Amino acid sequence: MSFRTIEWRDDKVVMIDQTRLPGEEVYIEYSDFKSVAEAIRGMVIRGAPAIGVAAAMGVALGSREIIADTHESFYQQLSNVCDILARTRPTAVNLFWAIERMKRVAEAHRDKDLNSIRAFLKAEAISIEQEDLQICRAIGRNGAALIKEGATILTHCNAGGLATAGYGTALGVIRAAHEAGKNIQVFADETRPWLQGARLTAWELMKDHIPVTLISDNMAGFFMKKGEISCCVVGADRIAANGDTANKIGTYSVAVLARENGIPFYVAAPISTLDLSLENGEAIPIEERHSREVTHLQGLPVAPEGIRVRNPAFDVTPAKYITGIITEKGVVRGDYERVLKRLVGQ
Amino acid sequence: MSFRTIEWRDDKVVMIDQTRLPGEEVYIEYSDFKSVAEAIRGMVIRGAPAIGVAAAMGVALGSREIIADTHESFYQQLSNVCDILARTRPTAVNLFWAIERMKRVAEAHRDKDLNSIRAFLKAEAISIEQEDLQICRAIGRNGAALIKEGATILTHCNAGGLATAGYGTALGVIRAAHEAGKNIQVFADETRPWLQGARLTAWELMKDHIPVTLISDNMAGFFMKKGEISCCVVGADRIAANGDTANKIGTYSVAVLARENGIPFYVAAPISTLDLSLENGEAIPIEERHSREVTHLQGLPVAPEGIRVRNPAFDVTPAKYITGIITEKGVVRGDYERVLKRLVGQ
Repeated sequence: MSFRTIEWRDDKVVMIDQTRLPGEEVYIEYSDFKSVAEAIRGMVIRGAPAIGVAAAMGVALGSREIIADTHESFYQQLSNVCDILARTRPTAVNLFWAIERMKRVAEAHRDKDLNSIRAFLKAEAISIEQEDLQICRAIGRNGAALIKEGATILTHCNAGGLATAGYGTALGVIRAAHEAGKNIQVFADETRPWLQGARLTAWELMKDHIPVTLISDNMAGFFMKKGEISCCVVGADRIAANGDTANKIGTYSVAVLARENGIPFYVAAPISTLDLSLENGEAIPIEERHSREVTHLQGLPVAPEGIRVRNPAFDVTPAKYITGIITEKGVVRGDYERVLKRLVGQ
Repeated sequence: MSFRTIEWRDDKVVMIDQTRLPGEEVYIEYSDFKSVAEAIRGMVIRGAPAIGVAAAMGVALGSREIIADTHESFYQQLSNVCDILARTRPTAVNLFWAIERMKRVAEAHRDKDLNSIRAFLKAEAISIEQEDLQICRAIGRNGAALIKEGATILTHCNAGGLATAGYGTALGVIRAAHEAGKNIQVFADETRPWLQGARLTAWELMKDHIPVTLISDNMAGFFMKKGEISCCVVGADRIAANGDTANKIGTYSVAVLARENGIPFYVAAPISTLDLSLENGEAIPIEERHSREVTHLQGLPVAPEGIRVRNPAFDVTPAKYITGIITEKGVVRGDYERVLKRLVGQ
């Protein structure tokens, strides 16, 4: 990959600004955790695994900003840093998973001096980033086996290098199949309202010379019905114990249309996206974002002033529509409740 | 309704410019048929019944432009006018239906002088327009009976006053239910890529004070699954003998999602939208439009330069997903082949 989504550099967090892609490839340096929180909320960085990494780096950055005479004060302030980062976005569980992991590291080193604790936090954040890249490569390998020579793969939103520390989950599967020499092509849903497909997936696949065709979301069914789509692969923001999967709004529709047309529908996600505390998808919180995302494009209105808008950013695809969940530990095909639990236990 | 979609005024054709709504309410006067053809192609006017009216008025206008010494020359040039208007858009059958009707009127008056023939053509075009308004009101009455008190109706694209001579087909049903005092509300799919829902449906329903909520196309399934949608009503561009219905891209997806969620899915269209020469929807020609409609918004790019695009403007919904077809002659519920044939025969 010829870009970096997020990295820790010279004790700053550097992110590619995803709000300005594909027009401009701009990297922003963050030196305080509140700006990182703002970057997550404002979608400078997005995608479940990537915001997990960003939150972890935010905690590490925040730990360096804390001025404390005592351990008690340090831990209290650190807890506040974590809370602020956790309040940025509600749906992707990787955010909370990463913050919990950072908290556990801080707890494990309570007996060390504050600068050592800060160093452990920095190291943990960098680990989370580097592990994510390895996990994506493993997801890619596991998923590539499902992609047939000559396949046309439909994907929704961006579950790519830009949504992770690199390589991607759904696009990791696609990258791995492409690297394995399979002659594949991708159909990318543009993914309204934020256009992650048009702006990000199209951009990163073109950069990697993987053939990609852009369509609007409502065309996916048309191409499925015409027999032009071999399979669907999407990412996930949170997977409940029974396999119900929250992902970008519109994923549910893709899944229903895929089943109606007898097309396999795969979810590609790291184990950190599993939330076994939730029995099923009903309880997954769905973020509603600002109406302006729907009513304005390029800062200009495309709808009448004062129009009422609903803007749920995610939906839940019931497990019954999911042919398989591709994780770094293997592909789960049905019997999700039992198998997912076993995978987490490993 | 507080606007006019199209009218014949002072021997010119006047249309509201739908490419500039909702920002500006601008009316354009056309005094030659080639500009009318360009207006249809460029979607200054769109919607199956409306482009039927526009094509008829285009023929009437063209007949006035013809300079001919003989009837033979006049009829040859008129045939050319009709051909140019017929080549503007391929999917909506109302275009061809209206042109055929104009041709029949010209044929019926071969024995008259040229100015009389021109007058008959003008009168026929105005009849087509006025009948369309009456037909929409009848569709509205027939369909309103299907709308329950308190209903939330999902619609896709714009099958409204703007898509007809006035009142609308799908929005005619909604208007009639509203006028009957039913406390209803509408969810409007924004309808990418051209945003007919965001720009036109939202605009005309707000003008008529009918409660409307705008969503992006990929949210429709979410709200259906949550139980927030009572029924779907859409228009049609062409209905085959077996009930298969071509309509704006994305309609098929709405229909599949509706059936999956046990929600009635209705098509509202005049009899002139039926094309009994086609056994089923497979043979309906589907227009593919310019990639720029997908890649650019407000003239600015939202996708990487050089991205490959597919842009089918319509899809076909198989009859099995359609709960009923609402026409001016009544509501057809299943057994489409037999009943549609009978309706056309009446």
